[in-house]
Amino acid sequence: MANVLIVYATDWGSTNKVAEAVAAGVGTVNGAQATVKTAEEATQEDVEAADALILGSPVHMGSMDWRVKRFIDQVCSQLWMADKIIGKVGAVFVSGGGYGNSGGGCELAMLSMMTNLAELGLVLVPLPKNTPGYPNGGLQWGPYGRSMTEDLKPIEGGVPDERIEAAQHHGANVARVASAIKGKTLFAQ
Amino acid sequence: MANVLIVYATDWGSTNKVAEAVAAGVGTVNGAQATVKTAEEATQEDVEAADALILGSPVHMGSMDWRVKRFIDQVCSQLWMADKIIGKVGAVFVSGGGYGNSGGGCELAMLSMMTNLAELGLVLVPLPKNTPGYPNGGLQWGPYGRSMTEDLKPIEGGVPDERIEAAQHHGANVARVASAIKGKTLFAQ
Amino acid sequence: MANVLIVYATDWGSTNKVAEAVAAGVGTVNGAQATVKTAEEATQEDVEAADALILGSPVHMGSMDWRVKRFIDQVCSQLWMADKIIGKVGAVFVSGGGYGNSGGGCELAMLSMMTNLAELGLVLVPLPKNTPGYPNGGLQWGPYGRSMTEDLKPIEGGVPDERIEAAQHHGANVARVASAIKGKTLFAQ
Amino acid sequence: MANVLIVYATDWGSTNKVAEAVAAGVGTVNGAQATVKTAEEATQEDVEAADALILGSPVHMGSMDWRVKRFIDQVCSQLWMADKIIGKVGAVFVSGGGYGNSGGGCELAMLSMMTNLAELGLVLVPLPKNTPGYPNGGLQWGPYGRSMTEDLKPIEGGVPDERIEAAQHHGANVARVASAIKGKTLFAQ
Repeated sequence: MANVLIVYATDWGSTNKVAEAVAAGVGTVNGAQATVKTAEEATQEDVEAADALILGSPVHMGSMDWRVKRFIDQVCSQLWMADKIIGKVGAVFVSGGGYGNSGGGCELAMLSMMTNLAELGLVLVPLPKNTPGYPNGGLQWGPYGRSMTEDLKPIEGGVPDERIEAAQHHGANVARVASAIKGKTLFAQ
Repeated sequence: MANVLIVYATDWGSTNKVAEAVAAGVGTVNGAQATVKTAEEATQEDVEAADALILGSPVHMGSMDWRVKRFIDQVCSQLWMADKIIGKVGAVFVSGGGYGNSGGGCELAMLSMMTNLAELGLVLVPLPKNTPGYPNGGLQWGPYGRSMTEDLKPIEGGVPDERIEAAQHHGANVARVASAIKGKTLFAQ
Repeated sequence: MANVLIVYATDWGSTNKVAEAVAAGVGTVNGAQATVKTAEEATQEDVEAADALILGSPVHMGSMDWRVKRFIDQVCSQLWMADKIIGKVGAVFVSGGGYGNSGGGCELAMLSMMTNLAELGLVLVPLPKNTPGYPNGGLQWGPYGRSMTEDLKPIEGGVPDERIEAAQHHGANVARVASAIKGKTLFAQ
Repeated sequence: MANVLIVYATDWGSTNKVAEAVAAGVGTVNGAQATVKTAEEATQEDVEAADALILGSPVHMGSMDWRVKRFIDQVCSQLWMADKIIGKVGAVFVSGGGYGNSGGGCELAMLSMMTNLAELGLVLVPLPKNTPGYPNGGLQWGPYGRSMTEDLKPIEGGVPDERIEAAQHHGANVARVASAIKGKTLFAQ
């Protein structure tokens, strides 16, 4: 049984849509279940109860949303200080307008969250390039839900389904890795 | 006349001490002056009135403090949207405990701010390794005020003076670059 | 008179095409001239004779081509050791297939070169989002020449012209910044 | 039985000493064994035969040694193209002089290797802060063997033992994670 906690922020619903796809992917794995919370809602207890933590954010000026960062500074840092969740599993996803056709800063945005997960001592799950849906929104660090057209117009109905297919598989991948290592003592201390 | 705006967050005063050193350095340059504001105080008008923007933050979990990020998301992103401060000058500094003796995540913390400055179209000022004080707290992206001892104990009196010497020169360097390019049209549009 | 040195590696000609666009942009600036060399050709003397150094590379596995890295390790590191080119100007560009529609690792590839330029003490020139051509291949760190279609097929004729328009302006921007600061002592030592 | 392949480059022996510590750590795990190869020696077959790939490099100008990059471009990229080693385990370590007392560029150097491992679809193992030896050379991305004194003088006898204690545990951690997930199908395709 793997509990996967997805913590995210959203402005207009795009990152929420990606978060739901990740959660749906978790649900496809036997014995796994997802809990989805906003960065405002999620507590230290939520994280401790989970086997995996997936952080999601819109890309803002090349890094994560400030509300996700506040969650990290106020909630995750307590867990880091106490070495409380070492050996769990971590992963990330983002959404963004993508202006410039070269990711629009999504890579450092992902790494600005990934560094927190590494500090927490989590085993990190990347996104392999042969994941279904990768061609429409995948980077090695995780899925990217592109929320606008090439000229920065919002897309009716939000991030199109084909752009979040990889996100669904990402959730399933994380759930499987979490199931595989759950209960094992992997890290020296 | 170069106006240098320093925007920072601080928890226990360490980053504030580095910010003051940067500001003092600005003041050593003929015709330059520094304005120091916290991330809560600084406004869009402050940034527009400046010739250079220097961001400073404690290192938290490998990236900037959430209050600096909120300033970026709520204030800087407006300037980005309107292409308002392209061609000004940007730089960064951080402080941190430095546990691990290898920077403690200060490099990505600097880059998590630097990416915002690049998005804003600012000319970026690094910290050369021959800067006085560099051996005690310098990285190529900017000065680092180490606030604790090797075993994570706070240092009485805060960040020692020798660890902020590079920060003072960083402020002066930024002021000189800002003076050199002020009023020039450097970027195609 | 600003001399801009462009050092790059190329596999099938895509990065070469972007390099030529950057060089053409330099040539549009009054009194500026570009020298284009491969990473195998460029020498320490070439760099010392230049006012600006622009590094370009294909994106390989999320970082720069090994030949560019060899140039950095064998040529640039000597200049770093001797503090020889502090206060010049630096910038980067990349090309890549872009599989995944989110940059394909181009951001860290740019930063893997940018970190070398920062170590050298160069004033760094980003790419503002209002640069003509940005929507077809721009990132805050520099231009990105996407060399393939969405399904990773090579494009006949190489990187399309509209995808290198930003690269041309990038070259001109760098030349203007180099002209503005040439001969000035900007950094404390 | 977990086979851990360690691929590294070294200039004066520092990274080699860290590599040997990592290998020794692997050897402490029941049923695990390490193979240590230089970046010049290691082949595609070596990587395919391994359950985990650990990359190590000196920090040069803020990124990995060019010989490690050549190994990635010429060997690893073939495995990436063919989706051949997805779901194995990856990790990194570095050594460096550490001038500046803030890591000397080791973080981006680690990430410049980590990005390759993520592209390959490897499950990534960080270094938790409670690892024995962490205070003397640990970063969230992996261990850091500091090879010089604060004023950039080489240390007689190479990287001191207390600075590579974390590296030994890193090797053991990787071996345990590799054992835990070996033979499992974790990633969708």
